[in-house]
Amino acid sequence: MQMSGNDLGDIPGLTVGQAACSTAETGVTVIVADSPAIAAVDIRGGGPGTRETDALGLSRLVGQVDAIVLAGGSVYGLAAADRVCTLMGKEGRGVGLTGRDDIPKSPIVPAAILWDLDRGDKRWGAEPPYRDLAEAAYRSRSTSINLGAVGAGKGAMAGAHKGGVGSASAAIAGGRVAALIAVNSFGSPYVPGTPHFWAAPFEQGAEFGGRGVGPHTGIADFPPDTAMAAMAGARRNTTIGVVATDIPLTRAQAARLAIMAQTGMARALRPVHAPTDGDILFVLSTGKGPAPDTEAAQLRLLTLGTAAADVVARAIARGVYAAEHMG
Amino acid sequence: MQMSGNDLGDIPGLTVGQAACSTAETGVTVIVADSPAIAAVDIRGGGPGTRETDALGLSRLVGQVDAIVLAGGSVYGLAAADRVCTLMGKEGRGVGLTGRDDIPKSPIVPAAILWDLDRGDKRWGAEPPYRDLAEAAYRSRSTSINLGAVGAGKGAMAGAHKGGVGSASAAIAGGRVAALIAVNSFGSPYVPGTPHFWAAPFEQGAEFGGRGVGPHTGIADFPPDTAMAAMAGARRNTTIGVVATDIPLTRAQAARLAIMAQTGMARALRPVHAPTDGDILFVLSTGKGPAPDTEAAQLRLLTLGTAAADVVARAIARGVYAAEHMG
Repeated sequence: MQMSGNDLGDIPGLTVGQAACSTAETGVTVIVADSPAIAAVDIRGGGPGTRETDALGLSRLVGQVDAIVLAGGSVYGLAAADRVCTLMGKEGRGVGLTGRDDIPKSPIVPAAILWDLDRGDKRWGAEPPYRDLAEAAYRSRSTSINLGAVGAGKGAMAGAHKGGVGSASAAIAGGRVAALIAVNSFGSPYVPGTPHFWAAPFEQGAEFGGRGVGPHTGIADFPPDTAMAAMAGARRNTTIGVVATDIPLTRAQAARLAIMAQTGMARALRPVHAPTDGDILFVLSTGKGPAPDTEAAQLRLLTLGTAAADVVARAIARGVYAAEHMG
Repeated sequence: MQMSGNDLGDIPGLTVGQAACSTAETGVTVIVADSPAIAAVDIRGGGPGTRETDALGLSRLVGQVDAIVLAGGSVYGLAAADRVCTLMGKEGRGVGLTGRDDIPKSPIVPAAILWDLDRGDKRWGAEPPYRDLAEAAYRSRSTSINLGAVGAGKGAMAGAHKGGVGSASAAIAGGRVAALIAVNSFGSPYVPGTPHFWAAPFEQGAEFGGRGVGPHTGIADFPPDTAMAAMAGARRNTTIGVVATDIPLTRAQAARLAIMAQTGMARALRPVHAPTDGDILFVLSTGKGPAPDTEAAQLRLLTLGTAAADVVARAIARGVYAAEHMG
């Protein structure tokens, strides 16, 4: 059932570019839609860093986006989206509210950042690298995606382990669904004290090492308040990503899909949605056919949402596995 | 680390009453706070049925509640909360906006319902039983809680299996956290085709049968759209519940705790947060000490939220196990 890529590049209508700086240990991942894509976002962490997410609200004007940007660098990384916006505007992409050629269109480029400021040398003063990284990522985009310590996941950590960019895809009736996640979680992708990924039940083949499900029950370990707060005080986190499908969706259906997809994060990371996480998932639909706004269409989301949660969980484990083994 | 009860009755300051009608296969669960408790709610399903949840918004006037009502009966079950409200008002409980004795106070009784209308004989015409069931539940309340096909879980289904009321508790530094959940999920509490609960990694002792974790990987089964939509069209669902702690919290901290607790639902049920679910969790804090509104206090939620998610997952499995084995 898997496409050969087993990643977000399997979704027709999307390209992905990534760039990273080894010195600053940070980077940018850009997901570009060939034409405006229906979009939604779901945010569950206590410390999100975002741009243009309010525009995606169901009662807002714009429901389609030109690109999504994921970046390291905390608040500085948001500048990556500014660069992508400018590049796309120069190409004539974006929402045009007038018919005039002398007025730039407005590309819609929502973005989310993760916190990697304590890794590498970030003494960039007034010149953070995110605009340049964004341009390099934008210009290098393709349907082939590298996983691990690349792009927005360059400096990422997954709990106490190296984090990174992961991706996975699945075929379902009527189309495909895939996820690309930059894993920089406060929580761990592993069952405590074991090499077993929380996401193991959903592993396809040996896509993240084939270590299987641990036999562990009775798990109740959470460090005491003081230790956990010290861990959290020493670093900030967040997991950010994109779920995409070529099945046509309404904006409201995309919003429901984002909510269901978030449950994949809960199955792959523990704890998750913590005060120190951001935990932001964008949803893109590149489908161009009719998307009926009916209850029957809502019910079709049961399958798509289940599959979306699974690919999110798998993408998280694949990202950590790749960062540890191919980094 | 468990209290002897291993349920919501372990939280000082709360009592629980349940009542059910065997003919109509439905019922009511009432959670009463000895004195007003800090509260929050998190709603993730596509089909919630609620009362007084808007009042809990962080910018709203009231942040403390007198009771929470969980009921079967879909929209008809909301009447259960009206009866509890009236009974508590008669006792002088509630928010008094005047100093006058001749003006009733306003008890704050948020409620959530689940859909069990296709089970038992619901031909109640103009006299649904929820007011009477609520009064019976209210008057019978104690700190001893029955699990399984009781109270709001009387007619509940968990996927294709019997559902019911489950509960679990855990001790953490500074206090306790517990959950009581009425499990009526569209999704299944079991790994597909196995007797293994999704919640198995978190099982303490043999609190839900000690069946262990299944060795299954490669799970990617989701019925095709048409089959899943037919299943969903034939029944509506939702999982509803309460997480409580005696650790003092601000309202904002209670809201974050509700979000983290929801991840326990994702770990115990698949799919979850579907269009046909409601998936509503209330949080209550009965703690009476100071609850500092500081970042350090937010970080303490890492431990409490992790434990809350675990007790939610365990409560779900315990409810299904009790419904199947003690019903």
